[in-house]
Amino acid sequence: MGNSFVIKGDIAYNKALKEIQTYKDGYLVCVDGICKGAFQKLPEEYKSLPLKDYTGKLIVPGMTDLHVHAPQYTFRGIGMDLELLDWLNQHTFPEEAHYSDIEYAKKAYAYFSHDLMRSFTTRAVVFATMHTEATIELMDQLEKTGVISYVGRVNMDRNGGEGLQEESAEASLKGTLEWLEAIEGKYERTMPIITPRFIPSCSDELMKGLGKLSEEKKLRIQSHLSENKSEVAWVKELVPESDCYARAYEMFDNMGTEDRPTIMAHCVYSDEREMEILKKHGAYVAHCSDSNMNLTSGIAPVRKFLEAGINVGIGTDVAAGSSMNMLKAILNAIQASKMYYRLVDENVKQLSFEEAFYLATEGGGKYFGKVGSFKEGYDFDALVLDDSAMYSMRELSVRERLERTCYNDADVYILHKFVQGNNVFDRK
Amino acid sequence: MGNSFVIKGDIAYNKALKEIQTYKDGYLVCVDGICKGAFQKLPEEYKSLPLKDYTGKLIVPGMTDLHVHAPQYTFRGIGMDLELLDWLNQHTFPEEAHYSDIEYAKKAYAYFSHDLMRSFTTRAVVFATMHTEATIELMDQLEKTGVISYVGRVNMDRNGGEGLQEESAEASLKGTLEWLEAIEGKYERTMPIITPRFIPSCSDELMKGLGKLSEEKKLRIQSHLSENKSEVAWVKELVPESDCYARAYEMFDNMGTEDRPTIMAHCVYSDEREMEILKKHGAYVAHCSDSNMNLTSGIAPVRKFLEAGINVGIGTDVAAGSSMNMLKAILNAIQASKMYYRLVDENVKQLSFEEAFYLATEGGGKYFGKVGSFKEGYDFDALVLDDSAMYSMRELSVRERLERTCYNDADVYILHKFVQGNNVFDRK
Repeated sequence: MGNSFVIKGDIAYNKALKEIQTYKDGYLVCVDGICKGAFQKLPEEYKSLPLKDYTGKLIVPGMTDLHVHAPQYTFRGIGMDLELLDWLNQHTFPEEAHYSDIEYAKKAYAYFSHDLMRSFTTRAVVFATMHTEATIELMDQLEKTGVISYVGRVNMDRNGGEGLQEESAEASLKGTLEWLEAIEGKYERTMPIITPRFIPSCSDELMKGLGKLSEEKKLRIQSHLSENKSEVAWVKELVPESDCYARAYEMFDNMGTEDRPTIMAHCVYSDEREMEILKKHGAYVAHCSDSNMNLTSGIAPVRKFLEAGINVGIGTDVAAGSSMNMLKAILNAIQASKMYYRLVDENVKQLSFEEAFYLATEGGGKYFGKVGSFKEGYDFDALVLDDSAMYSMRELSVRERLERTCYNDADVYILHKFVQGNNVFDRK
Repeated sequence: MGNSFVIKGDIAYNKALKEIQTYKDGYLVCVDGICKGAFQKLPEEYKSLPLKDYTGKLIVPGMTDLHVHAPQYTFRGIGMDLELLDWLNQHTFPEEAHYSDIEYAKKAYAYFSHDLMRSFTTRAVVFATMHTEATIELMDQLEKTGVISYVGRVNMDRNGGEGLQEESAEASLKGTLEWLEAIEGKYERTMPIITPRFIPSCSDELMKGLGKLSEEKKLRIQSHLSENKSEVAWVKELVPESDCYARAYEMFDNMGTEDRPTIMAHCVYSDEREMEILKKHGAYVAHCSDSNMNLTSGIAPVRKFLEAGINVGIGTDVAAGSSMNMLKAILNAIQASKMYYRLVDENVKQLSFEEAFYLATEGGGKYFGKVGSFKEGYDFDALVLDDSAMYSMRELSVRERLERTCYNDADVYILHKFVQGNNVFDRK
């Protein structure tokens, strides 16, 4: 079972939220797909393992994209001057409606899967559409990429507009059950996740049904929370008995539990009350700063979430985020936090580079277990990067090269990608 | 004289600040290095010119980088968690001190020139260092790239720290004169520009001397203005008789005139008073939003500048900006303006995509004359781009492809680059 080998190169990973450990010409050990640690000197016991020599290359943990919409990938970077609700109605919903056509889905998801395989992402939590057949197609394709993912068939029984709305709560729940049955036992790397689009798309009855289903089937949930001011105001109208947006999810048993944590994307407008709910349920915030800037949503107070002990990872949120590139997402998270500090509240300190890198690796990786670090016992998810196109006039430290890499995503190439010790991608 | 030809492809350029003109399978005519316009049907009179067929490729005006520090290029993306004054003292000044060594300068500037040639930039306004020989080396190298540029030998006679400070105002002025003499008549494409680093680096005497020199030699000036709060406060101490930072430049005759416009980088904290001074002198704001986010400086209110009729272009401000990529700079400018709108003042509307694209092309290009558009009579600066790596499920309009390109700089390739009709770069 599994792969066992040693990698040599310039290694960097977070030992902790605020601390990056590096090894110049270090060794990284994989035994049966599990990381046995990173070392400056290779321990005697691993010397018999095959050695992959990537001297001079940068070796970092694989990254987790906690929030990405697969069907939106092919129209990324278009219509970006709109805000959320207009963007959904004018671009997203009409596009997603095409996925009732399985041939369309096959082709479009092939583009997404192709590029995901070549990306810095080794774990992803993915929205599909409300179409069962297309969602299964996406899962089939993702399984082959080697990337480990959760994929959600989207539930939406109201406000979807023409061609993108399920007939009723009952039909939506029935469709979800059929989807779950169809894929049962089918995949090694691809897991289903319950996916109510967001409160405006789901009736109370549907939300309650999904909460129940999640409990019965022991399935996780993903959704969107407090992304945009108009959306937040709308939810207040739609669920008047709830004192905040997060409470609406909680009322419908959609906030999850420590062992089945819910992912909530955005949380731009999450206040103390919402933070308390997120914390209480062990939920994850998928921080999507690129998207939040593009749709003029605002900036989520990530520092506050971290201080409150809430789980935080990073989502690219394609296509409101324009790119699946997690390095770009790291940079965006740092820049957004700096602007929050400078323009909103100087008591909320900006993210350091160390912290942002942590969020993209172990921060989101935790959602998958021991993932996103090179500490002993973690899944062996690793990227071998070529940063040699960025010249320097002196020998940079590994820490400096890592920072430079995240600030210049276009100048870095992935040479090899490993997930649980499996070599899932090599640059030709 | 010059080159005359026709290019066929998918053409996009700003007809006006808020309007992008596109032609699918259009024609772009160059006669003796001057653009004769873009057309859907090739006019009879140009049919005898040689045709370069780039069908399916995107053709856009060359871009102007109004503010970039060549000696900082090789350490871009490092130390980005600092604010301006600390970053200058810890990273920038020690690095620039190396340029007293001409061999060092040769090597480092070769990296810069190499990458500039391969970038979206066709015009640049560049800071060198205070070293005459190294500055000439940079100009020699830039001349060969085909890019048209202004280059400044930097003046700084105070607060530079060890190894990066001229002896006196007199020595600084003398060095500047020697530099100007040494390069007189030497270049076709590379022009000198007077470059006081910023008020904290230049004594009153030096500033006055540079103002006088600019007038005598009919040379333009570039500098920095109101980038960071601590810097603004420091300038208030250093020049107490001035009622604002811009006034200090004005007092020393450094604000220029309509026909010799000064470029002021940043202007994050420029208020009505400073805007009045900028407007009165016909100065250009080099908007550097990537840099301003990285160094936690803030966001410049570009919309206000535009409404006041102030000239605005975009600067990458490498290395406080981490990349020379002007597409990324367009995206940053849009995102920053959205955050200014959302977080600072909802009366200051965000930049539309059209407006941001204008700033990167004609907005900054105007500084060089009729540059940055495909209107008749403009210099023929053009980029032929391959955007085919970004799949789509339907035929996108040229306008959509242009937006997508600016939102995904890593997925676009430059195939050919023309400056004044000269083909200065081809992708191998």
